[in-house]
Amino acid sequence: MLLPYFEMHFMTTRNNCSADLILPLPAQPGTALADVDTPSLLLDLDAFERNLDRMQARANRAGVRLRPHAKAHKCPDIARAQVKRGAVGICCQKASEALPFVRAGIQDIHISNELAGPAKARLLATIARHARVSVCVDDARQVPVLADAARQADTCMTVFVEIDVGQGRCGVSDAEAALRLVEQIARHSGLRFGGLQAYHGGAQHRRARSERRDESARAAERTGAVITRLRADGVHCDVVTGGGTGSVEFDLESGVYTEIQPGSYVFMDGDYGRNEWDDNANFEQSLFIATRVMSVAARTRVVVDAGLKSMAVDSGLPGVRETANAVAPLRYVAANDEHGIIEASDAAALPGLGAQLLLVPGHCDPTLNLYDEIIGMRGQTVECLWPVAARGLSR
Amino acid sequence: MLLPYFEMHFMTTRNNCSADLILPLPAQPGTALADVDTPSLLLDLDAFERNLDRMQARANRAGVRLRPHAKAHKCPDIARAQVKRGAVGICCQKASEALPFVRAGIQDIHISNELAGPAKARLLATIARHARVSVCVDDARQVPVLADAARQADTCMTVFVEIDVGQGRCGVSDAEAALRLVEQIARHSGLRFGGLQAYHGGAQHRRARSERRDESARAAERTGAVITRLRADGVHCDVVTGGGTGSVEFDLESGVYTEIQPGSYVFMDGDYGRNEWDDNANFEQSLFIATRVMSVAARTRVVVDAGLKSMAVDSGLPGVRETANAVAPLRYVAANDEHGIIEASDAAALPGLGAQLLLVPGHCDPTLNLYDEIIGMRGQTVECLWPVAARGLSR
Repeated sequence: MLLPYFEMHFMTTRNNCSADLILPLPAQPGTALADVDTPSLLLDLDAFERNLDRMQARANRAGVRLRPHAKAHKCPDIARAQVKRGAVGICCQKASEALPFVRAGIQDIHISNELAGPAKARLLATIARHARVSVCVDDARQVPVLADAARQADTCMTVFVEIDVGQGRCGVSDAEAALRLVEQIARHSGLRFGGLQAYHGGAQHRRARSERRDESARAAERTGAVITRLRADGVHCDVVTGGGTGSVEFDLESGVYTEIQPGSYVFMDGDYGRNEWDDNANFEQSLFIATRVMSVAARTRVVVDAGLKSMAVDSGLPGVRETANAVAPLRYVAANDEHGIIEASDAAALPGLGAQLLLVPGHCDPTLNLYDEIIGMRGQTVECLWPVAARGLSR
Repeated sequence: MLLPYFEMHFMTTRNNCSADLILPLPAQPGTALADVDTPSLLLDLDAFERNLDRMQARANRAGVRLRPHAKAHKCPDIARAQVKRGAVGICCQKASEALPFVRAGIQDIHISNELAGPAKARLLATIARHARVSVCVDDARQVPVLADAARQADTCMTVFVEIDVGQGRCGVSDAEAALRLVEQIARHSGLRFGGLQAYHGGAQHRRARSERRDESARAAERTGAVITRLRADGVHCDVVTGGGTGSVEFDLESGVYTEIQPGSYVFMDGDYGRNEWDDNANFEQSLFIATRVMSVAARTRVVVDAGLKSMAVDSGLPGVRETANAVAPLRYVAANDEHGIIEASDAAALPGLGAQLLLVPGHCDPTLNLYDEIIGMRGQTVECLWPVAARGLSR
């Protein structure tokens, strides 16, 4: 699994430049944690594997299919690890995002989103020649665009009707509109109606578990009503897909979803960490940013080398992972473009020049999108480097 | 200038996959604005060139050298345009960030920052074999690390002492500490003392012009005191470098700086746009994110295809560029990972499905860091695509 990435790195960095003007990889298999170059994205492989196993086991117990969302990791190696454990395929959020996964052999991809315009529909139709592909619509005008693209590529695409189950973002709001879309889809030979997408993004981050349970219940109720209405017209929904890391424990029990699409459970993050969880429903923090102290000149605070270009801060500043011998907790209090400011209640607890810290990013998805590779750690040693092959693929 | 990028795109996307599993470029020279794929980063070349000319003219008038900061653009094509107008070289913030610029032929690079550890010092020493390189220190322990790296690479590096002029981030706080560092540097044959770095990042974003003037004056006063103290010991500072887009009009007049290092003036952004400016000191917004309406299902709001993965939001959500025929201003009110929510006071003003909008990013530097290419627009037509070659190079 490693060789292609190293080869790729070697080839692309070797082109058109002196042999020594190459950025070395941040680590190699066997590198000790203390020697990993910074800032870098670390994955605790033990925690990661437990998260994958736990979600798959939970889906299996409920008899619901797991289709993890690849927008969280953007990494074909992780998608393969999910499929190997029983995932039926993956979700992507954009047509372009699907490309590296198809190239890596993932055979079943659901675009859990609407596509903005014919160029994206053409790209998806091209992908559909190599893999099983589905996509969402929430407007009748999207349907002929997909049909044209499928016809031109001489292929077939599965189309889901997205319904709004409480977020007020994408998706039609009532069963009549859903039915009209199903009828639209049926008019085109290159399109096949796949079922319903019913995802409530806003419900995932409600802090109280009871609020997430209630939101999930309302989403399931709305979805059930649409299913019933469609069935009355002879339309059967083979697949009902939705659910995220924050709501999945309830979605699985709802009896409505045939498929769940959580993404963040792979890594977790500071924001999900602030949610209230049932002990048995929790996943472990597996994703960290390795950073180093680059300046101690200010004395009452130290400066680390990871700032806004190394982490997303939309869900708050990162936490600092506590170490066993810490005198007092460290706080990451400000992010500049390339600098982070670390403070402690007791200045004696501040780390020294060159010390390595591990940060817990506030929001995993856009943080992953800043890195070219994930460094897989087994304990204190690097085991693998995985390219974030879909990084930046937002079209 | 275009061919190498297109060739590179072709080569790297062609490897190891079916010929049709390639992501098309978002535009080609000659593409009309309305046909540019989204989300994409657009540069208004007319405004961009005026910004470059204006800053160079201002530096020339003051008799101060311009060394623009490449951390803002990460784009060798832009660095070349700056050097062609008279810039003496560029600043980078990280050793790795300098690599693509050296490969592109930029011959003079100042790392306006301390390096965290020996691996980065080794990389910089390697770069110093190909270009004139300088770097900052603010701790005696950083000096032998640089000296060792220079010796191993059989090269020489110029070292600046960074002084804290009010930000409380990096830099020594007094002249005695600066003097001790100068003495440290002098002990190593592979190192040469270059002068002082005196940069106040916090001063750049003070809203009131008078506050920025006062901060700049205080920074200049502090810097002047250190220069005087060093001179008393026979140490002459050939170069005093600092200043950013927000303070440069005052820094240029201070009589202290021999070199200014602004970066954002190339693009401007929402945050700088909220600063109060002297009319003659202002630069123009040249950077925009092109996005498209992908869902109108919610009716009272529309959803666009640019979210957290297409813009940095640390300095606020993006603005929406007003168009001549707008009924009411549009507001970007929420960013999800891949979705943006657009509202208007008058729902009749909401754009239709597929409509293209231009957004003004809140903070240009970390936004650039999300894109692989800048699309240069001449009016309503694409003129060029420039790779953001240093994107993601944060080590």
